[in-house]
Amino acid sequence: MSESVNDAGTPPHSYLYDLSEGDASMRHLLGGKGANVAEMKKLGVPVPDGFTISTQASVAAMNSGGTWPEGLWEQTVEALERMQQRTGKVLGSPSDPLLVSVRSGAVVSMPGMMDTILNLGISGETVEALGRESDNPRFAWDSYRRFLQMYGEVVEGVPAYAYADVLEEMKHERGVESDNELSTEDLKELVDRFLEVSREEMGEEMPTDPLDQLRRSIDAVFASWQTPRAGVYRRANGISDSLGTAVNVMQMVFGNRGETSATGVCFTRNPATGAKELYGEFLLDAQGEDVVAGIRTPRPLAEMEQALPEAYQQLVDTMQRLEEHYGDMQDMEFTVEEGTLYLLQTRSGKRTAAAAFKVACDMVNEGTLNREQALRRVDAAQLDQLLHPAIDPGHGQEPLTTGLNASPGAAVGEVVFDSDLAEARGKAGDAVVLVSRETSPDDIGGVLQAQGVLTSHGGMTSHAAVVARGMGKPCVAGASEVSIDVAAKTLTLGATVLREGDLVTLDGSTGEVYAGALALMPPQLNEDFETIVGWADEIRRLGVRANADTGEDAAKAREFGAQGIGLCRTEHMFMTEDRLPAMRSMILAGDAEARAQALESILPMQQEDFESLFRAMSGLPVTIRLLDPPLHEFLPDLVEQALEVQRLEAARQRGEDEPDPAQLSHQRTLLHQVEKLTEMNPMLGTRGVRLALLYPEIPVMQVRAIARAAFAVKAEGAEPIVEIMVPLVAYAEELRRMRAVIEETLEEEFESSGQRFDYTVGTMIEVPRAAMVAHQIAAHADFFSFGTNDLTQTGIGISRDDAEGSFLSAYQDKDIVPGNPFSSIDADGVAELVRIGAHGGRRTKPDLKLGVCGEHGGDPASIGLFSSIGLDYVSCSPYRVPIARFAAARAVLDARESESESEG
Amino acid sequence: MSESVNDAGTPPHSYLYDLSEGDASMRHLLGGKGANVAEMKKLGVPVPDGFTISTQASVAAMNSGGTWPEGLWEQTVEALERMQQRTGKVLGSPSDPLLVSVRSGAVVSMPGMMDTILNLGISGETVEALGRESDNPRFAWDSYRRFLQMYGEVVEGVPAYAYADVLEEMKHERGVESDNELSTEDLKELVDRFLEVSREEMGEEMPTDPLDQLRRSIDAVFASWQTPRAGVYRRANGISDSLGTAVNVMQMVFGNRGETSATGVCFTRNPATGAKELYGEFLLDAQGEDVVAGIRTPRPLAEMEQALPEAYQQLVDTMQRLEEHYGDMQDMEFTVEEGTLYLLQTRSGKRTAAAAFKVACDMVNEGTLNREQALRRVDAAQLDQLLHPAIDPGHGQEPLTTGLNASPGAAVGEVVFDSDLAEARGKAGDAVVLVSRETSPDDIGGVLQAQGVLTSHGGMTSHAAVVARGMGKPCVAGASEVSIDVAAKTLTLGATVLREGDLVTLDGSTGEVYAGALALMPPQLNEDFETIVGWADEIRRLGVRANADTGEDAAKAREFGAQGIGLCRTEHMFMTEDRLPAMRSMILAGDAEARAQALESILPMQQEDFESLFRAMSGLPVTIRLLDPPLHEFLPDLVEQALEVQRLEAARQRGEDEPDPAQLSHQRTLLHQVEKLTEMNPMLGTRGVRLALLYPEIPVMQVRAIARAAFAVKAEGAEPIVEIMVPLVAYAEELRRMRAVIEETLEEEFESSGQRFDYTVGTMIEVPRAAMVAHQIAAHADFFSFGTNDLTQTGIGISRDDAEGSFLSAYQDKDIVPGNPFSSIDADGVAELVRIGAHGGRRTKPDLKLGVCGEHGGDPASIGLFSSIGLDYVSCSPYRVPIARFAAARAVLDARESESESEG
Repeated sequence: MSESVNDAGTPPHSYLYDLSEGDASMRHLLGGKGANVAEMKKLGVPVPDGFTISTQASVAAMNSGGTWPEGLWEQTVEALERMQQRTGKVLGSPSDPLLVSVRSGAVVSMPGMMDTILNLGISGETVEALGRESDNPRFAWDSYRRFLQMYGEVVEGVPAYAYADVLEEMKHERGVESDNELSTEDLKELVDRFLEVSREEMGEEMPTDPLDQLRRSIDAVFASWQTPRAGVYRRANGISDSLGTAVNVMQMVFGNRGETSATGVCFTRNPATGAKELYGEFLLDAQGEDVVAGIRTPRPLAEMEQALPEAYQQLVDTMQRLEEHYGDMQDMEFTVEEGTLYLLQTRSGKRTAAAAFKVACDMVNEGTLNREQALRRVDAAQLDQLLHPAIDPGHGQEPLTTGLNASPGAAVGEVVFDSDLAEARGKAGDAVVLVSRETSPDDIGGVLQAQGVLTSHGGMTSHAAVVARGMGKPCVAGASEVSIDVAAKTLTLGATVLREGDLVTLDGSTGEVYAGALALMPPQLNEDFETIVGWADEIRRLGVRANADTGEDAAKAREFGAQGIGLCRTEHMFMTEDRLPAMRSMILAGDAEARAQALESILPMQQEDFESLFRAMSGLPVTIRLLDPPLHEFLPDLVEQALEVQRLEAARQRGEDEPDPAQLSHQRTLLHQVEKLTEMNPMLGTRGVRLALLYPEIPVMQVRAIARAAFAVKAEGAEPIVEIMVPLVAYAEELRRMRAVIEETLEEEFESSGQRFDYTVGTMIEVPRAAMVAHQIAAHADFFSFGTNDLTQTGIGISRDDAEGSFLSAYQDKDIVPGNPFSSIDADGVAELVRIGAHGGRRTKPDLKLGVCGEHGGDPASIGLFSSIGLDYVSCSPYRVPIARFAAARAVLDARESESESEG
Repeated sequence: MSESVNDAGTPPHSYLYDLSEGDASMRHLLGGKGANVAEMKKLGVPVPDGFTISTQASVAAMNSGGTWPEGLWEQTVEALERMQQRTGKVLGSPSDPLLVSVRSGAVVSMPGMMDTILNLGISGETVEALGRESDNPRFAWDSYRRFLQMYGEVVEGVPAYAYADVLEEMKHERGVESDNELSTEDLKELVDRFLEVSREEMGEEMPTDPLDQLRRSIDAVFASWQTPRAGVYRRANGISDSLGTAVNVMQMVFGNRGETSATGVCFTRNPATGAKELYGEFLLDAQGEDVVAGIRTPRPLAEMEQALPEAYQQLVDTMQRLEEHYGDMQDMEFTVEEGTLYLLQTRSGKRTAAAAFKVACDMVNEGTLNREQALRRVDAAQLDQLLHPAIDPGHGQEPLTTGLNASPGAAVGEVVFDSDLAEARGKAGDAVVLVSRETSPDDIGGVLQAQGVLTSHGGMTSHAAVVARGMGKPCVAGASEVSIDVAAKTLTLGATVLREGDLVTLDGSTGEVYAGALALMPPQLNEDFETIVGWADEIRRLGVRANADTGEDAAKAREFGAQGIGLCRTEHMFMTEDRLPAMRSMILAGDAEARAQALESILPMQQEDFESLFRAMSGLPVTIRLLDPPLHEFLPDLVEQALEVQRLEAARQRGEDEPDPAQLSHQRTLLHQVEKLTEMNPMLGTRGVRLALLYPEIPVMQVRAIARAAFAVKAEGAEPIVEIMVPLVAYAEELRRMRAVIEETLEEEFESSGQRFDYTVGTMIEVPRAAMVAHQIAAHADFFSFGTNDLTQTGIGISRDDAEGSFLSAYQDKDIVPGNPFSSIDADGVAELVRIGAHGGRRTKPDLKLGVCGEHGGDPASIGLFSSIGLDYVSCSPYRVPIARFAAARAVLDARESESESEG
């Protein structure tokens, strides 16, 4: 029979596999549990007898509204018969009864979500035999009453309280506290009462035929796949509803048959630290649920050596063998029945991030894994965890509210509503959290000195969010449920009011906000981390650069392994308190000349910024993007300004002194300018190259600053590698003209300075049209950088600022979208635009350099896609550089795997 | 030699063609004039001798900065020698001199833009011979002084006034009024003085070698291609700069050699009416410029029969022959030199729109053209002209200002600043023009009753523009130079102030605004028009539907030949004064129940709208789009509302009575709601299907209204064909869910009414992602309608409201974009998205119905693209339906032509 498995891939009894027919590779059919038990069986590790009903069977039943596929029951009965032959025990037999467990076994582990029935096969007819055979009648009757309760609840839907009430009643009658004080006679009576409960609740006799019970139990496991809680869990964990569950039918073994029996769990390494040491617990004369229920305190595994030396040695050997076999730390369940060891389950052990890195490194050093395999033993989320402080789990507190997870990491501090105060107190060494309706460029000092930032308004691209991410500072943005009164210095949510100085805890990774101070765990960067990311560098094909606007950020990025700057947003340089006035006077200038004059005053500041970038990235490329946002972003808010003017006008009308005419006139001019520049849809308005072509003075100034900065740092001996990037290009002609302006300006600078440097000019591809005509644009570009943030906004027609608070969240809640397209790139739509753009560009210039500088550049799933499209590099925030390096390697390994799969 | 032309396509002298070597098909090489003269020569029509220098030569010279391509001059001299042999005259010969004209000849006619030199070859040495030979010394000397002036101005850049001053001086000295009162001796002296002027202005002797003059003249014609005025003309008329011009060198013939000579122009039909009648003018003993200059009044052509019977008969025969040969009405220039007729030029005659239609119809009836050829004799712009009143040309007035040409046609009326007044006066029969900063839904009554609308704010999709286009009402929007003070009732631009009651004229086709009343020409719809569009229907493959929101519009559309409604925008139905309150209370509702209640009151209104649509379109499909815009469009403006609340609050603080607390509270609630609903980028925000999925009560109400309306009109015996369209779908899942809501609601209505009807459900494809995943979306759609307005906005990343006033206009002025992508679809970018979407959809459903309902649906160039992509129908505003029917046929003919060309 096993031959026909090998030949055709499925046995003749196609919905069902005996243990000997399976192995670990058949997880998709047998579920994780079934596949691993079969694998252990294959390895000669002692496991109970049994068989597995495949996920295909449950899917077929699910698709036909619960009706079993033809032949499944017949196959089940045949498998049971084979099992009875092998074990010599018979289900329902009054002499030597077979007892089985019926357990679910999902392909991806869903702990606690699915149903289990133990002790099936016990009945009024078999209980006595079991008592005799085990020489332990109490055990037999206790098993019986447990079975009745479990079966009633799980299979027949009897409410749990019905049995619990009867049990409580009996304990009360007998004057005892706990179940195990009940005598065998008590348990016999309890069985009678339980049978009565079942009859009443079900409205009929409970089925007594164990075959009938088995059939109903399998049905119940099938059905448990579709319970609401299982659905919620799957959605939360990205597990497909269509996988279905396998069902494992296995012979019961008992750890509660006296002092030569035991039950326990063990890990092959310490799951908290990753240290290679024995880790586990056991209980003598106990069942698995006793360990879980906490009625008796389990003992450290090491103590089992004395109690059950043979079984212990066998277990330790098995642990080592299984870890080596799987090449990963294992989490196992075992039972010793009268001295005989049975492994009930083995799986990859859950571990902390730090442990994951240590285990992976150690196993390479031990020779168990190669480096590529080790890279598959950690994941990007664990890297992320290591890079940021996190809230210590297990605090048990409910969050006050949940906003947008705008910048990862956790922060604790005193609430401060004023950014100047936050700056002052932060500098003084106090831990403060800046709380604000929204932040403006003026608040940057406060953001810099605070532990974290909380805003009630603004989305994932709000000023606070962008600045915080750039600094690696935790931020919860758009926490719209809370009401923040800056004047009164209060944060209110329902009855809760936080005042200045009150403690608050933010989790920027989840968006959760807690009143009070929770304990934090520090970032756990260590040598193992460096080692693993170093291995990733050997494998990855994608370059990794950083988005950075300051020398400080650039230095940090370089430290994290960035291979250059992929995006310097020059507009951020204008958004500091000291530079905003110069920028405003540039915008308010009446003509090109006045504008040029204002720009003159900005030039040295920009030059200084560029110098610090070139210095920090000496020898590595620095991509500087010309000014991108619309001009009105540098002016006050339209509504605020209109209100201010009306207020001043009213005051003057009333004859008040306050507004002198010059002030009023200035405010009116400002209002007029804000009105003129305010756009209905700024995302689609006059910015980027459009602005640059209307006001070429601006890019000319920026290019001059770049050239002069490059010369300045060259004079210091540094090596600037200059890449100039034009944003928002939609037409090839835009880039052609802008490139001419850039080249002309640089030539002027080269001529006047008598020196020159090499440079490249490229463009962002961030509107769909640019992707469509990439073959035309490429004629004028040395490189493309896909701006996937804006490409997502324009490609899906979705404004990030508007959507994340409103319909996009609702879409995620309702599963209309597969995920937030700003977190992981939309694979079917936006990534397709990237693909078209990449192919178009390379059609014109086969060696065109292609990168990504949207926030997707730091997202592992997106990086996989970018790698498969054939881009050259990604650029992300400095703090995500190690994650990107790692993810880029994983992308290569995944591609190899799927290639070898498709070849095999 | 002509053999080698036929073999290789070009003669050995490759830059130059004798007349006998060309024909009408060589227009791209010879220019229009040269090709047609060659064609006439080929037909045996008498033309002066000559040759043509090809456009390739001028392009080569232009590309090398003015240097002639090698061999060109040698070829010119050889051609001239051949010409001298044929004519027996020699350039510069003192005995029988050859005189030539040097004229430009563009591929596409550019009247008056390019340069001409006549009488070249006349000089001190040849003038006497010419006088002798012509027996008319005055003619010879007059020709000489004309040549000197023309050559000096055109070739040597001598300012015109230099010659004009000398001429005026002499007339003053001689005491005469006009040139032709000067004697032969006077002219001799004038020649001397002109030579002196030339010498002084040029700083050297004028070249006297006629070959040298010829060379310089050809150079001047080359150069005239690149004058600023020529460039402006080309850009305005969409002519490529790279075409270059041909140069025609032809023997001079003279109509001023006495009473057996004449010159004239004629049309083969009346260009004003299209009537088949002799139409033209001539002058005996005159040169062409005499006719143009208006010194003598030309005589009707018919009178030539008596004066020059032989030449007249020859001309009439030639006219008929050429019209038949070209299959089009001809506009010809001729000269009779001593009884001998020469045709100097023939070309398709410019004609009024009405004439174009009459000529095309008549020529089919006469058997000269078939229907397809006739369709090629009219163009879409002429159709447009017939459909709208237009300003009678020749008024000679400068426009006051130019805004956006938001809705075509012309309007004259008294300025009214208040929409209620406009409504009242319009109803009273007065012609008024509504002038406003911008219009709101409340103004619709005024718009309806006004002759036209003028706004200083808002773009091509502003409320005023959309409503006006829907009504076929002229509108100039966003005339931002004018300042409108509604309170003072003034429209100011510089020193001009228009007050209420002043007359104003709008040209919505050009955006021009004139003070005062200009004469208008009424729309000229007639039988010929119907006939031609009827022929178009036989040929076109694309269906043509209309965008209409009212029964009235639908009826108008049907009258114009619409085959259904392709887009009913249900939100327009809420934007009337009487319905806005119900809509607002729906938006302000606190919960789903209150919202449902408000919707209940809207339902009967919507039902009534749908009934009128179904009635008007009985038997034809009606596509109803569910609510599309974001909710805040139905509320007041954010800034206005914030100012109002601040004003009320201040008044209360001052203890004024005015705002009662309830009013203030209501205004605050309104402000809060406006704030909540106002989006940063509403174009990318919560509207369309997103709104519908958040508030399913809205589509449910709309679908109920559709169902009930359908039943109501069925009861009347009408036949509603219902198509329900879901806007803004980006994800297939959105449509799947929305379709479920629609189907469920309809089933409820079917059940409760006990009847049913067939219907289809489709979606707009209007964001790039939808195009990318069209194959997924198609699974849930019966039809797609491409919303190319929004697809242009999202695809190019360009907000129409923001761009048209600012960078997009600048882009058009600077030729960065090939045209306004909202007028004609962007062929490289947005049309590519349409193509991808269409192919994707058809991949899943080969018979998926595909249409377009953006404004491009009425644009001829775009219709051509849609036809080539293989869409099934376009939908446009009712007034553009005939144009679309026509353009769809032209698209088929163009495709056939390019197919047969590529086959040939």
